[in-house]
Amino acid sequence: MTAQKIKVAVTGATGETGISIINALLESEEFAITAFVRPSSTEKPELQGFKDKKVPIVPLDLEAAPLEEIIKAFQGQEIIVSGVMPYASDIEKKLATAAKEVGVKRFIPSFFAPLAPPTGVNVLREIKEEVINHVKKLHLPYTVIDVGGWFQVSLPIVPSGKLDYLTKIPTNVQYGDGHYSTSVIDIRDIGKYVALIIKDPRTLNKYVFAYNEVWTHDEIFKLVEELSGETIERQSVPEESLEAAIQEASKAYKQDPSYKNFVLLIVHQYANQNWVRGDNLPETGTYLGYLLSKDLYPDFKFVGLRDFAKEALDGKAKPVYQTRTFEF
Amino acid sequence: MTAQKIKVAVTGATGETGISIINALLESEEFAITAFVRPSSTEKPELQGFKDKKVPIVPLDLEAAPLEEIIKAFQGQEIIVSGVMPYASDIEKKLATAAKEVGVKRFIPSFFAPLAPPTGVNVLREIKEEVINHVKKLHLPYTVIDVGGWFQVSLPIVPSGKLDYLTKIPTNVQYGDGHYSTSVIDIRDIGKYVALIIKDPRTLNKYVFAYNEVWTHDEIFKLVEELSGETIERQSVPEESLEAAIQEASKAYKQDPSYKNFVLLIVHQYANQNWVRGDNLPETGTYLGYLLSKDLYPDFKFVGLRDFAKEALDGKAKPVYQTRTFEF
Repeated sequence: MTAQKIKVAVTGATGETGISIINALLESEEFAITAFVRPSSTEKPELQGFKDKKVPIVPLDLEAAPLEEIIKAFQGQEIIVSGVMPYASDIEKKLATAAKEVGVKRFIPSFFAPLAPPTGVNVLREIKEEVINHVKKLHLPYTVIDVGGWFQVSLPIVPSGKLDYLTKIPTNVQYGDGHYSTSVIDIRDIGKYVALIIKDPRTLNKYVFAYNEVWTHDEIFKLVEELSGETIERQSVPEESLEAAIQEASKAYKQDPSYKNFVLLIVHQYANQNWVRGDNLPETGTYLGYLLSKDLYPDFKFVGLRDFAKEALDGKAKPVYQTRTFEF
Repeated sequence: MTAQKIKVAVTGATGETGISIINALLESEEFAITAFVRPSSTEKPELQGFKDKKVPIVPLDLEAAPLEEIIKAFQGQEIIVSGVMPYASDIEKKLATAAKEVGVKRFIPSFFAPLAPPTGVNVLREIKEEVINHVKKLHLPYTVIDVGGWFQVSLPIVPSGKLDYLTKIPTNVQYGDGHYSTSVIDIRDIGKYVALIIKDPRTLNKYVFAYNEVWTHDEIFKLVEELSGETIERQSVPEESLEAAIQEASKAYKQDPSYKNFVLLIVHQYANQNWVRGDNLPETGTYLGYLLSKDLYPDFKFVGLRDFAKEALDGKAKPVYQTRTFEF
C-alpha cells in the first residue's frame, strides 16, 4: 500500500531557507513537491539538484501575476510554504489570499527568523506581522515557523583566515562582555524541522520555534579558539553603541526606505534582539506563544554547533549567500 | 491560618466591566482590591457599593499623570486589571510601562470584548493590538481576556415595550436571515471569570475567551417570543447593507475621527464580527489562539440566556449604560 503523498508548494525555492526545506521534503519521501521560482530564476545553479530529482520547477512572478493566475498555479496544492524574502507584505498577502481561495490545508508564511516581539524591535518582523494578521482575517489555516540564528553566520573569524570563506562579511564582533545568550540552528536542520512541523496536527494554527542549541556569545568564541588553537581578538561593541547604531539606521531608513538602508537597519536590529534583548531564547518563545521544537520533537537528531565548527574549520562547511546578493 | 490576599488594582472601576470585576473579586474574598478612578469620578453613584465594602477608591488621572506618578500609585500591586475604555492606546501603553516598572505578576489589558482578528475588522481591536504588542515588547506578564456579547444588549424589543428599559437604543434588527450564531455572556459573569483567570497559572501569557452560550440570532428572537407570548417583527438587515454601512462609517471616521464617528463605526463592525463573519465563536477563538473558558472551568455555574430573558421580561434585569454616556 502506497500512502498518498502530501502536495506541497514551495515559493522562493532558490533562497537558503527554501533550499533547506525542499532538500528535507525530498528526503522524507512523504511529499510531492512543486517549486515556484521567479521567471528570471529558472536557470539558477541552485535549482540543478532539484531538477536532477525531478522536482517540477514552475516559473511564477508573484509580484506581477494577477490573483487569478496565482490561484490557478496553486490549484490542487495542500500546503504552501513561502520562502520568499518578506521585504514587502503585499506579495505574501496576495499569496495568502490565493491559498484561501485554493482551500489549502495549511499556509506557512515566510517567517523563518530569530524571535522578536511583533512590533517595535525589528522592521522585518513588523512586515511579517501584517502578513499573519491578514492570514488571521482570512481564517486561513497556518503555521508560523521561526528559527534560531544560523550556525553558518554565527562563528567569529580566526587570525589564520580559515573561516573567512564562510561569510562575505568577516567579523569578530561581540556585544557587551559576550555573556548574552541566543538560540542557534544549522540551516540544514531548518528544512528537517519544517518537514515534521507541516504535517503535525499539534502545530496547526500555532507558532513554532525551531532551534538546536543555546550558546552565549563568548562560549562560541571560546569553542572556536579551542578547536582552532588560535586566539581571537574580541571586538566588543557596547550595548549603547548598538542602540545608537539602531537609532541612526532607523532614521536613515525612514528618510530613504532603500534596500541598502533596510538591510543596514535589520542587521543591527537582529544583533539587538538575538543578543542584548534576549528575544531569541526558548523562554521568550514560550512567552510569545510559540511551541518549542525541543518539546515537540525531543528525539530530533540535530547538528551541534561544535560539530559544525569542526566542519567549518576543516574547510568543509557550505557557505551561505555565495552565488548571489539578496533579491526581492 | 489566613492566606495572604492577592493585591489587585482595577482601573476604570466605574465602567460596566470594571464593576462586574470588582464585585466578583470582592465575592471571592481572595483579593485585596484597590479601585483606581478618574479624579472627576470619585463621587459617582456606581462607587457607593464599593465604598460600603471598604474598597479603597484612589483618584488617578492616567492620561495627565506622568509615568513616575503612575508607578508610585501602583507600587506593591501584584495584578493590574485595566477596565478603562481603550479608545486610545497611549494611556494603556503608559499603564503597561508602569506595570513593568512596578514588577507586577500579571497585567490584564482592557480587551473584554467579542472576538475579532487583530486587524482589518474592528478599529477598537486594532487599538488593543497596539497595546498588547507594547506589552510583548516589554516582556510583561499578561493575560488577554475577551468575552462574548453581553446578554444585556442582546435581546430584541417586544411590541408591549416590556424590554425597552434595558437599552437606550431599542432594536429588533437581525442580520441576514438570522441563522448566524455568536457567543454571549451575562455581564455579571465576566467578573467571575476574571476572578478565576487572573490567579490561574494556565492562563499566564495567554489569551482567554470567556462566554456562557452560543445562540443564533433567530433563536434569541424565538426565545423572547416564547417567554413573552408576543410576536416580534424582524427588521432584517441584508449582509450587503451592513457591509455598505461599515464602508460609509469607516470613511466618515477617517475624515473626522470624532468620538461619535468612532462609535458609529464600531457598532457596525461589532455586528459584522459577531454575526456575519463568525469571529465571535469558540472555534474562531481556538483558531486565534485563545483558551476557552468552557475548557478551563467546566464546572462554572453561569447564567443562561433563557434565565436572563425571563428576568428581563419580569422587569428585574439591571440595564447597562443608564447613568451616563460613554466617557474617555
